Amino acid sequence: MIVRSQPSLRDILFAVNGSILPRIWPRLLAIALVSIASVLVAKRHPGIFEAIGAIPFTLIGISLSVFMSFRNNTCYVRWWEGRQLWGELIVACRSFARQISTLPEEDRRALAYGVCGFCAGLSARLRGTDEAEAIRQWCPAGSAACDPNPTNTVLTGVGRRCLSLMQAGRLDPIHYSVLETQLTKLAQVQGGCERIAGTPVPFAYSLLLQRTAIVFCLTLPFALAGSLGWWTLLPVLLVAYTFFGLDALGHQLENPFGFAPNSLPLSAMRRTIEREMLGALEGEDVPPPLEPENGVLL
Amino acid sequence: MIVRSQPSLRDILFAVNGSILPRIWPRLLAIALVSIASVLVAKRHPGIFEAIGAIPFTLIGISLSVFMSFRNNTCYVRWWEGRQLWGELIVACRSFARQISTLPEEDRRALAYGVCGFCAGLSARLRGTDEAEAIRQWCPAGSAACDPNPTNTVLTGVGRRCLSLMQAGRLDPIHYSVLETQLTKLAQVQGGCERIAGTPVPFAYSLLLQRTAIVFCLTLPFALAGSLGWWTLLPVLLVAYTFFGLDALGHQLENPFGFAPNSLPLSAMRRTIEREMLGALEGEDVPPPLEPENGVLL
Amino acid sequence: MIVRSQPSLRDILFAVNGSILPRIWPRLLAIALVSIASVLVAKRHPGIFEAIGAIPFTLIGISLSVFMSFRNNTCYVRWWEGRQLWGELIVACRSFARQISTLPEEDRRALAYGVCGFCAGLSARLRGTDEAEAIRQWCPAGSAACDPNPTNTVLTGVGRRCLSLMQAGRLDPIHYSVLETQLTKLAQVQGGCERIAGTPVPFAYSLLLQRTAIVFCLTLPFALAGSLGWWTLLPVLLVAYTFFGLDALGHQLENPFGFAPNSLPLSAMRRTIEREMLGALEGEDVPPPLEPENGVLL
Amino acid sequence: MIVRSQPSLRDILFAVNGSILPRIWPRLLAIALVSIASVLVAKRHPGIFEAIGAIPFTLIGISLSVFMSFRNNTCYVRWWEGRQLWGELIVACRSFARQISTLPEEDRRALAYGVCGFCAGLSARLRGTDEAEAIRQWCPAGSAACDPNPTNTVLTGVGRRCLSLMQAGRLDPIHYSVLETQLTKLAQVQGGCERIAGTPVPFAYSLLLQRTAIVFCLTLPFALAGSLGWWTLLPVLLVAYTFFGLDALGHQLENPFGFAPNSLPLSAMRRTIEREMLGALEGEDVPPPLEPENGVLL
Amino acid sequence: MIVRSQPSLRDILFAVNGSILPRIWPRLLAIALVSIASVLVAKRHPGIFEAIGAIPFTLIGISLSVFMSFRNNTCYVRWWEGRQLWGELIVACRSFARQISTLPEEDRRALAYGVCGFCAGLSARLRGTDEAEAIRQWCPAGSAACDPNPTNTVLTGVGRRCLSLMQAGRLDPIHYSVLETQLTKLAQVQGGCERIAGTPVPFAYSLLLQRTAIVFCLTLPFALAGSLGWWTLLPVLLVAYTFFGLDALGHQLENPFGFAPNSLPLSAMRRTIEREMLGALEGEDVPPPLEPENGVLL
Repeated sequence: MIVRSQPSLRDILFAVNGSILPRIWPRLLAIALVSIASVLVAKRHPGIFEAIGAIPFTLIGISLSVFMSFRNNTCYVRWWEGRQLWGELIVACRSFARQISTLPEEDRRALAYGVCGFCAGLSARLRGTDEAEAIRQWCPAGSAACDPNPTNTVLTGVGRRCLSLMQAGRLDPIHYSVLETQLTKLAQVQGGCERIAGTPVPFAYSLLLQRTAIVFCLTLPFALAGSLGWWTLLPVLLVAYTFFGLDALGHQLENPFGFAPNSLPLSAMRRTIEREMLGALEGEDVPPPLEPENGVLL
Repeated sequence: MIVRSQPSLRDILFAVNGSILPRIWPRLLAIALVSIASVLVAKRHPGIFEAIGAIPFTLIGISLSVFMSFRNNTCYVRWWEGRQLWGELIVACRSFARQISTLPEEDRRALAYGVCGFCAGLSARLRGTDEAEAIRQWCPAGSAACDPNPTNTVLTGVGRRCLSLMQAGRLDPIHYSVLETQLTKLAQVQGGCERIAGTPVPFAYSLLLQRTAIVFCLTLPFALAGSLGWWTLLPVLLVAYTFFGLDALGHQLENPFGFAPNSLPLSAMRRTIEREMLGALEGEDVPPPLEPENGVLL
Repeated sequence: MIVRSQPSLRDILFAVNGSILPRIWPRLLAIALVSIASVLVAKRHPGIFEAIGAIPFTLIGISLSVFMSFRNNTCYVRWWEGRQLWGELIVACRSFARQISTLPEEDRRALAYGVCGFCAGLSARLRGTDEAEAIRQWCPAGSAACDPNPTNTVLTGVGRRCLSLMQAGRLDPIHYSVLETQLTKLAQVQGGCERIAGTPVPFAYSLLLQRTAIVFCLTLPFALAGSLGWWTLLPVLLVAYTFFGLDALGHQLENPFGFAPNSLPLSAMRRTIEREMLGALEGEDVPPPLEPENGVLL
Repeated sequence: MIVRSQPSLRDILFAVNGSILPRIWPRLLAIALVSIASVLVAKRHPGIFEAIGAIPFTLIGISLSVFMSFRNNTCYVRWWEGRQLWGELIVACRSFARQISTLPEEDRRALAYGVCGFCAGLSARLRGTDEAEAIRQWCPAGSAACDPNPTNTVLTGVGRRCLSLMQAGRLDPIHYSVLETQLTKLAQVQGGCERIAGTPVPFAYSLLLQRTAIVFCLTLPFALAGSLGWWTLLPVLLVAYTFFGLDALGHQLENPFGFAPNSLPLSAMRRTIEREMLGALEGEDVPPPLEPENGVLL
Repeated sequence: MIVRSQPSLRDILFAVNGSILPRIWPRLLAIALVSIASVLVAKRHPGIFEAIGAIPFTLIGISLSVFMSFRNNTCYVRWWEGRQLWGELIVACRSFARQISTLPEEDRRALAYGVCGFCAGLSARLRGTDEAEAIRQWCPAGSAACDPNPTNTVLTGVGRRCLSLMQAGRLDPIHYSVLETQLTKLAQVQGGCERIAGTPVPFAYSLLLQRTAIVFCLTLPFALAGSLGWWTLLPVLLVAYTFFGLDALGHQLENPFGFAPNSLPLSAMRRTIEREMLGALEGEDVPPPLEPENGVLL
């Protein structure tokens, strides 16, 4: 995640990091070349593109904006829901820590380590790194080799410990139900994140909109070259920058759990949770918070 | 569900699978023929369509985009809600498995099989295959011949077993209420899915928008043929592709539980649940996860 | 509710049932007559409407689409929320039936009849038919003559019976709270449905948009007659059909509990609930599900 | 609230009540005068406004519609949320009445009066009338002179009574928690209503949009007068009516708790609650429901 | 927060406070200068900009409005969610106060002070002032020097006290779970506010839209100067005012917890909570509510 939001004048002129330009310049270049070609042809053979008016393109362009705006909205909502889910994760971990704060130190430590292991596993699972490895850091004996869902197994372990405490009479059943509510929240966060990570926006949508956008940008120069001459380049590139840029950005936000500059800072949020869980135990080293590198928080 | 989302350049040029083209090419062809006819007439009788300006069509086209964008949004929201409901199903099953993890093996097995039977029945019910047959796989004695809702009957069986455990004093009442909360979630998922599957977007909406779109695309060539000549084909086909394509896609997403390439992967999600429920029992064969075929996950 | 959603080619050409045309043809006819008159005048006195350009009308028409799209969205959301509420009703009834499944037959029958009476009363209340009569079918002694809210009185009776069971020690307090949760859901459904049925979209909205739409459609012919001649009829009627059609449809969806073809099938959903409630009792005749008549489910 | 929603043809032609016209006619008149002046000048000095084309105004007008549509949506959502909150209030009161229905008559009367006092106080608080006075009608001794929030104090009194009943052993703790859930709902309704009443849409939004709309409507005549002549008045007034009308309506809906014709009928909803709370007690006079006056329900 | 919403005619003409003008006048001035230059050049060299038509700019401008409307919506939703969270904070504090109203005075005082300390800490945390200092006012011994999250520590202290009361048998376990529900609400409010404050709208969005808007406004004069002459200034400045103004306003609303005129009145809401918490204790001085200064409530 890029840690600021309001671009300064300087950013507007020069920013490359966080900009979507590096992703789309080949397409912009292609569009520019087509524009130049169309202007050259129009100069040599005046009237050849005369018939193609700008009005049908206005219609297509505006329709396309309306549909692309919808796709962008959808992708942004996925990104924001990912952030909301991790926010709920932080809240559930804090609440769990508060609700076990009068248990004996040994039980608290085991439960807190389990929660940290769950967060580590979830982060690895979403980012495609080694899930079992991430969990072992906190729960050495926790995961079998062929476990289909190690992160959930950690959570089951935490829940089973709470159940055992209740059955041993060391936890009031009501108190157990209060703790279990938080564990269900954790499971909901996992389920929600897996949903976002595993279910892309329907492929046919992206395909249809990209096809239309590319055909539109490739033919727009011919509609304008006749009357605008070299000025053609300006509106064509502006339109192409907006359409391709928003499309590429939408694609980055669609799966918010990756390592792109605009992805969510899973590692930093995981660290926040660990700091707060460990800070509530005695005699633990609390690691420092993660800092952004080059303005990007991972 | 098609398992990728970002089309590559190659997809944009050639992709047929996942594209909406196979569904709409007859309409596109008809529009192309009308366009060609209109251009031929315009060439032979210059001025015949001169009076029809492009401006009224701009107005109609943009209005139509605004309304179609709304319908598309609606259909997408139904599809995404279907996915959310199945996500909640996964979470509820996992939580249920965690909450029963200290019960005796026999009870756990019966409850887990019941949950698997519920998921199998729900999947069959939504996809229109044999519901009772799907359930019998897990609960051989579970369903009567004339049962109006076998899937719900399985759930009632699970709930009744929990109640009996409580009344026999083997389950704390609080623990019962925690389990019952998950069963209510399962019932909510079923109710929500039945709502989406059984209540289409109002027919009059689809009818009105399709009628307007078809009349619009059929008359657009006459408005452009006079001035654009053979160039007429380009904007007309682009507009028709976008409008018909989004309409056909919206219709596919409207009922997300079918077998179309953009439908939700109910079988794969059901398998995920079975793997996790069986993995928590002892001595069970865990089936492998479903893999996409030709890039489509069912 | 019309039970299909995707219009076939035949529907697009000929469908009348489910179409909004029967509601708006007088207005379309008026617009057509005004158009014809304007063309005749323009033919006789060329240049008389020359000054009125199409561009201001483009501006007005697009603005109007944006605002009408908002009103349509609002009305659709009300319709869908009505459906969601009845979906929650079905879920709450099923869950209630599951949660009482180990009570003695006599209590179960009384509670199940109470829930059926509640649904019958709610349906009658929303559709403006005789509420007390509908309830008496299930709870003969249930409603006083001057009761301000008979449907809620039935629910209070069910709740009171549960309370009595708890006070007599035949229901665990936790079990009572689980049942009461479902009864609160039923009350929420009633409150939500009454909200939709009793609070229309602000009158000033509908008035303003209809006024603007009518003035727009009445004056559009004059703007086009000068240049388009007899072609004027086409865009004018297309625009009028779209605007008036969406407006009339929005009005149908605004109150989703009526008897219009696009209204929600309250009777069919009520029957679904009765079938499932009675199916769980012994020795009851389960009525058959309601079937659509002429493609419309009531 | 105006109790109907679909305007008849007569309404469209003549309705004043419920229309937004009385609020905006001075502005419309000013715009009309400016239009007339611009036409007169254009007639005398032909060509003076020739340069100002209609196209830039199309751009500005459409942009403005998009932004105004967003503001309108926001205001409508506030109004509808206000209605939802009062709907939840009705549901919570009904549920509370059901849940206390087996308590002794004396306790029920005190609790029901407390709930009625809460609703009366909330209504007065939101409408800016005398809050303590409204409450005294139901709870004579309930509110101190300098109480910062008398409505909440009534609720605290109700909650304290429930707590005392529990501590005296006359209410099961679970039953107390069920009742307390409804009281928290009441507190949420109060908090939500105070939020809407106390937090307007950001002033800068309203200011920016109104400024742009006024400048737009004041300059539009000059752009059209040259080519349209006296026809200028028609589109200008139509645009001004739509923009100013939607703006004024948005402002009415922004604070939905006032006494404007489009405000929510708080008094009628409060009466509904009182009728149902009193109807559940013995020997109480149930007041009649409020009727709309001149089609407006307060 | 500016405490009124409907601008008067006077505001529209002269309002500076609350207006977004002070933030954007340098950009408006730059655009004005470019416009003047373009008109001068066009006057001297007629025809030089003739080729650049207004139509491509209409397309770009409308697309830009659609996308900016989406960004504005997003920012507004963040602001409103911030307000909702603080509304939930107020409700949770009131409910907590009600639910502890029969505890001994000493416990109530400690719990109420803890809640006030939590609100003070949260406000300071969100506004970037000294968090530990703000908390010490209420909980002198509450926070360690190196605490990663002092506000959460206060909440843990409150939760631990409730747990101890339960373990000492002075609080029924059910009553504990009711109180804990409110504490979890407080933690959710903190988590939600931290989410909004810490996660800006993706930088690439703001950058892309600002870049497009600036290029658009800088080139628009050249498209209009040829035909409109000095009239060019009017539409250009109107468009620039709307686009830059909405962009700057969106940025203000994006982080709603600052000290800008349109930020949320955290201090006033905190005071409201303190007044109500202290008013429920005996022998406390209740501070007066905060009043707006120059029409702005902080």
